[in-house]
Amino acid sequence: MSAGGRFITFEGIDGSGKSTQIRMLADTLRGDGYDVVLTREPGGSEGAEEIRSLVLEGDPDRWSAETEILLFTAARRDHLERTILPALAAGKVVLCDRFADSTRMYQGLSRGDLRGIVDQLHRLMIGREPDLTILLDMDPATGLARAKSRQTSEERFEDFGQTLQEQMRQGFLALAKEYAPRFRVINGDQPLQDVAHDVAQTAQAHLA
Amino acid sequence: MSAGGRFITFEGIDGSGKSTQIRMLADTLRGDGYDVVLTREPGGSEGAEEIRSLVLEGDPDRWSAETEILLFTAARRDHLERTILPALAAGKVVLCDRFADSTRMYQGLSRGDLRGIVDQLHRLMIGREPDLTILLDMDPATGLARAKSRQTSEERFEDFGQTLQEQMRQGFLALAKEYAPRFRVINGDQPLQDVAHDVAQTAQAHLA
Repeated sequence: MSAGGRFITFEGIDGSGKSTQIRMLADTLRGDGYDVVLTREPGGSEGAEEIRSLVLEGDPDRWSAETEILLFTAARRDHLERTILPALAAGKVVLCDRFADSTRMYQGLSRGDLRGIVDQLHRLMIGREPDLTILLDMDPATGLARAKSRQTSEERFEDFGQTLQEQMRQGFLALAKEYAPRFRVINGDQPLQDVAHDVAQTAQAHLA
Repeated sequence: MSAGGRFITFEGIDGSGKSTQIRMLADTLRGDGYDVVLTREPGGSEGAEEIRSLVLEGDPDRWSAETEILLFTAARRDHLERTILPALAAGKVVLCDRFADSTRMYQGLSRGDLRGIVDQLHRLMIGREPDLTILLDMDPATGLARAKSRQTSEERFEDFGQTLQEQMRQGFLALAKEYAPRFRVINGDQPLQDVAHDVAQTAQAHLA
């Protein structure tokens, strides 16, 4: 294993099975002897979780898109400093459920002119990209049905129809091309165990 | 009065009398018939006040300098969108206790390499500069004594010695040179009513 640890992120539309798959991968890699840190965005550190609550609770219109991007960037900076970088420095494998690609996709999709702001803020305040990003790609109808069945008050990003869900799928696939060297696209429409097998193989090949 | 309103900020070291002088100026200008909005940073809008609490309460080391700058920029963006710009669009005079110059000075002074980040974030996410900035300049010993006499738990920026207070004074004077066209430096060591007279005259001349 690399002395500097490895930073692996999971991306995909809501309901694509990220949370389940990232937990299964953590178990597999721990079984392989890796020291694994499992984390998520938005959130992932004490301060970032407080910012997450500030952004996601309450009236959806309480923040403009620009203010929301600044708050998410503040949360990401805290998460990076307090959780991700220390774990990587200690040689651990960091598995993160969503990272900057989700911001690129969701904010960029909601208003095209925001993508430039997202990218400039990322370069200025975050900088770090994942070593490997696993995109769970799937039929948006399936994802939407899954997402709706477990919707909580906090998950307001999931309150979308199937057309938007399809746009998001295409948005993630476009990001996978844009950042091709670190992306692996996995077919999330397969049975759970088959997806887990593909995910494990992809991660193990990267870590070998 | 200008159709687009005017944006006037007050800057200066802690204890320089900003809060008192800005209230006195608000009264004077209201007496002159102006529609005046009195606000402050950090804070100044509902969302910005929540971010202010998140930044200023609790352990002073809970946020890194970079995360703190992002949170202050998020608060400023909200303040600008929800309070300042609507008031200016309605033709009002906005008097604001501290604005971007305080961030330039305090963050830039705490770590020299942060000034570039502060400036880039400002250009990217804020843009707007005040039309007029009144700098209350005064002997740091006097300012420090005043600031200490009314210190609250939230005012952790004021927990500094006289050497640092002198550096801050010089930092504000340097900003006044850097942004000379919009800055007016007023002698804050004069008796309160004389300072108020100078402040009123400066603001009235600008608004005329």
